[in-house]
Amino acid sequence: MLSRIKDLFIGPALPTQTISFKQLNKIRALASFSPDALASIAYANQEIYLGLIVAGSMGLSYALPIGLAITIVLVLVALSYYQTIQGYPSGGGSYIVARANLGVLPGLVAAAALMIDYVLNAAVSLTAGVAALASAFPLLWSYRVPLALALLLVITLVNLRGLRESGTIMAVPVYLFLATYLSMLAYGLVRLIIQGPTPVPLSAPAAIEPLTLILVLHAFSTGCTALTGIEAISNGVPAFKPPQSRNAGRTLIVMAFLMGTLFLGSIGLTQLLGVVASPQETILSALARRLLGSGFLYLLIQFTTLLILAVAANTSFMDFPRVAAILAKDGFLPRQLTGLGDRLVFTNGILALSFVAGVLIIVFNGDTHALIPLFAIGAFLAFSLSQSGMVVHWLRERGKSWLVKALTNGLGALATLTTLVVVIFSKFLEGAWITVLLIPLIVMVFQKIFNHYQQVRKQLSLKGFPPSLKPLLPTRVVIPISGIHRGMVDAVNFARSISDRVTAVYVELEPGAGEKARLEWESWWPDVPMVVVPSPYRSIVAPLLQYLEETDQQHNDGQLATVVLPEFIPGRWWQSLLHNQTAWLLKTALLYSRREHGLERVIIDVPFRLT
Amino acid sequence: MLSRIKDLFIGPALPTQTISFKQLNKIRALASFSPDALASIAYANQEIYLGLIVAGSMGLSYALPIGLAITIVLVLVALSYYQTIQGYPSGGGSYIVARANLGVLPGLVAAAALMIDYVLNAAVSLTAGVAALASAFPLLWSYRVPLALALLLVITLVNLRGLRESGTIMAVPVYLFLATYLSMLAYGLVRLIIQGPTPVPLSAPAAIEPLTLILVLHAFSTGCTALTGIEAISNGVPAFKPPQSRNAGRTLIVMAFLMGTLFLGSIGLTQLLGVVASPQETILSALARRLLGSGFLYLLIQFTTLLILAVAANTSFMDFPRVAAILAKDGFLPRQLTGLGDRLVFTNGILALSFVAGVLIIVFNGDTHALIPLFAIGAFLAFSLSQSGMVVHWLRERGKSWLVKALTNGLGALATLTTLVVVIFSKFLEGAWITVLLIPLIVMVFQKIFNHYQQVRKQLSLKGFPPSLKPLLPTRVVIPISGIHRGMVDAVNFARSISDRVTAVYVELEPGAGEKARLEWESWWPDVPMVVVPSPYRSIVAPLLQYLEETDQQHNDGQLATVVLPEFIPGRWWQSLLHNQTAWLLKTALLYSRREHGLERVIIDVPFRLT
Repeated sequence: MLSRIKDLFIGPALPTQTISFKQLNKIRALASFSPDALASIAYANQEIYLGLIVAGSMGLSYALPIGLAITIVLVLVALSYYQTIQGYPSGGGSYIVARANLGVLPGLVAAAALMIDYVLNAAVSLTAGVAALASAFPLLWSYRVPLALALLLVITLVNLRGLRESGTIMAVPVYLFLATYLSMLAYGLVRLIIQGPTPVPLSAPAAIEPLTLILVLHAFSTGCTALTGIEAISNGVPAFKPPQSRNAGRTLIVMAFLMGTLFLGSIGLTQLLGVVASPQETILSALARRLLGSGFLYLLIQFTTLLILAVAANTSFMDFPRVAAILAKDGFLPRQLTGLGDRLVFTNGILALSFVAGVLIIVFNGDTHALIPLFAIGAFLAFSLSQSGMVVHWLRERGKSWLVKALTNGLGALATLTTLVVVIFSKFLEGAWITVLLIPLIVMVFQKIFNHYQQVRKQLSLKGFPPSLKPLLPTRVVIPISGIHRGMVDAVNFARSISDRVTAVYVELEPGAGEKARLEWESWWPDVPMVVVPSPYRSIVAPLLQYLEETDQQHNDGQLATVVLPEFIPGRWWQSLLHNQTAWLLKTALLYSRREHGLERVIIDVPFRLT
Repeated sequence: MLSRIKDLFIGPALPTQTISFKQLNKIRALASFSPDALASIAYANQEIYLGLIVAGSMGLSYALPIGLAITIVLVLVALSYYQTIQGYPSGGGSYIVARANLGVLPGLVAAAALMIDYVLNAAVSLTAGVAALASAFPLLWSYRVPLALALLLVITLVNLRGLRESGTIMAVPVYLFLATYLSMLAYGLVRLIIQGPTPVPLSAPAAIEPLTLILVLHAFSTGCTALTGIEAISNGVPAFKPPQSRNAGRTLIVMAFLMGTLFLGSIGLTQLLGVVASPQETILSALARRLLGSGFLYLLIQFTTLLILAVAANTSFMDFPRVAAILAKDGFLPRQLTGLGDRLVFTNGILALSFVAGVLIIVFNGDTHALIPLFAIGAFLAFSLSQSGMVVHWLRERGKSWLVKALTNGLGALATLTTLVVVIFSKFLEGAWITVLLIPLIVMVFQKIFNHYQQVRKQLSLKGFPPSLKPLLPTRVVIPISGIHRGMVDAVNFARSISDRVTAVYVELEPGAGEKARLEWESWWPDVPMVVVPSPYRSIVAPLLQYLEETDQQHNDGQLATVVLPEFIPGRWWQSLLHNQTAWLLKTALLYSRREHGLERVIIDVPFRLT
């Protein structure tokens, strides 16, 4: 039943050998790696607008300068990652580059930062996508949380199923997005040239805050979320067709150019056409409405925005589980994250990401604007560490024109580090503190997990263990019995087949019941002694544990008595609700009770099946 | 840690022998058994008022006649139960009387009806109590659900702790309630005599429905909730001091008299003084405000109402678990409900009641008025069955003046049955259908559970079982191994100590790993064969199960191979998150996989403890 439902949604299991790697040409590679980066303009634009509108129309006039500043950072980061692609043709994720060049700790910091940003990217992209939809259909505003969660569910299921043809499926929304947006911007540019700039209308909200440097820096730092996702290509160089580094590098340049065009184009048109948005509308929606009216073309733009943002959220579902699996393989995360599931995807990583993103959407009430202050810190920290790592890399290697390369990466590191500092300070109280606090906490967890696995490895080592291993003495056996009935027969038989020192123990809940049980017992198994243990507090487990400990001490024969547990297995699941779970409770108590002497108690389950 | 928290809220375990039965004098017995019955007037009054106000002031003039009709039913039911007390001095709950005289099925119907009503009594009393409080402090209206749930939590904890001195603690609110209400009603009567009746004020809401027979019947049936709880004394005769039947009977008469006085007095004063309530106030609160103003005396009345309603909810916590335990002892409910917990109370019954009452409060949004249509049906069904049972009882016994007694109970049965029909028809669509549907469903569950226990009893019987029981053959043993390490040593040793036919099985997830493992294995345990099982779908459990089934079939020696499972026990609970739960998954799969041939597989856990 359960497995049929699973097959319906996730599909049947796939054999390991069907794993295949397809190499992508530049057109498909752009579609695979760019959605996250391109879609960022949707929320980055919105945040710059929201950051400036509080200072009225004066504030809005700073949009284009801020957009230019961010574009400069974009160029520096893109150049820097172009170098990473040359230096790490086998895939240079921030964790790998930072770890190899700066050490384990910086590597872990980069990894923690990246993982936080993947989660936030999923949450932010989904809420921004729903905001694009709700701009077109205002009735949907009050359903933003359930809508975002529904999208999350769909993306989770699709990823659990496994995206076999990701390149092709992804290409449609990406190129649709590029085509519609670039056309719209071109049309807007023509209109701007013909009509000339429009001032901000009088209906725009009046300034409620003075236009300070802090306000401008704040708008800049929220706008820097536009750059998240730019590192994607550098992680995925092996997916390109050869010559891999060259193709990946060129694709990066094209992507950065497109990002810059879309970002500057939309922000410039918004400012120069004097577009303002009503409270329940995104600024991109307001721009599209101004240029295209509210008809089919407008709806197409909004729908395309939703689609690219959903695909952008999807990139987190590809990247997060992969980074988690790399960390798990290195022993910094639970090793369950390394296992490929039935459908050859990292099932546990996908589920973990989906859960955390869902919690974020609920806690932040589906509000992109509330999530943004947590965002981008992770990305810029990872950028800085990775670029600094590249500087060390070139200094060490000293290959062709190493100085230029090191300087380029150094410039990138400087730009991202400066941005990081601006971002942290200008958004600290709004939520950035959460991320700042989380990163060291996560790194601590990484190390704690690593230490645990190291400990386990030591304890499991057979090195120096005596090679001649003698079997244990014939064991003492104790059978806890609940009464004299058919369910005991197999257990007693099994116990007698492995030992001639078997004792039955009856826990007496009602005075007198023990004596009665003993008489009956002796008529069936006269050669197996039965002990009655009183239980004044009506517990079954505690007196049994005490009996076992006491007799073990009395015997003092270098072993603990083996417990044979007769266990009822009901025919149907609901029937287990009708039986005391004594066997289960006892097993748990026996396994998890503390031992001080290094001896372990063997537990034998003898099932008795009810029909 | 967990156990210390438990001790704080619930208290330490109590030994069985401290159970004691204290016999109550009439003063204390009245306090113990009457709260439910007395408190009913709070919501019954309110429901009659709400039922009639829709027909305006004309409607309200029917309040007193309806009150009189209900009081007549009250007298008949009280007389009827007086007889039950004489006929069943050892305690005559509806289940016992109906089962003994009418048969098992009517007994079960009575039990189901009673249990539903106990749950509803808890939910209704709490929401009505909160309504009394919120009438005094209107700001609390919007917090009715959390307030009712908080009260429920307190009552649950108190009951889990065990009420050792219930008679004394309960006496305070009960007599406080009687004293304040009776004084208020007496004062109101004096004022009424001096001032004469007041017409309903013009500010009262206009009629929005015509005054029909159906409307009056509907108000009557909602008012009949006043009678719930009247059966309590007949269940508890053994708790009285001797002569028990006489004392219990007299207490019942006193209680019925008090109920009638409070009910008729409050409903009469409300009508004759022309009291109407605003939407967020109960009618009892409006009456008290009219008579006492809004000062200290008014607040005392409201607080006393809340208190008596809380105590009334508490009676459900004493009765429901007791009835559940009786049914469980008879095999109609899970036998976990019979067990006295650490504090000598029926812990599971208390938790079940608390859970269901909490769900009702949440689903019905803490609204007494919405819960009422479900209520009282159970009580009147149980009344009818129990009184009919008493008729049969007297006809069978033919003792002193049996005819009068049978006629009295017959009259009681007729009155409650008529009321039941009226209640069901007039409230069917509003929610009574839920109860009508639930009762047969619950009876079916009772029977299903009974059949299961009967089946189990048959299967467990040793009758006809051969008395000479031979131990099994020396067993075949299979050890699933995850690698060659220290955690395997104890398991292999134990396996070899109980059998000379041991096989290790390695599930190969990555091609080639099996051969490597085999070489290492042979260097440590050359005399134990190791088998490699490939797993193309990366599952560990499925290939192992398949291997076991195949080899069992090949051997065909009348037994299944015993599985020895090496199991890691992490030192701290969180560390189990860092290990695949393969041993646990495997155990579950082995225990619950279907067997067709009647053989059972023994499972041996050999723990390896990590530090």
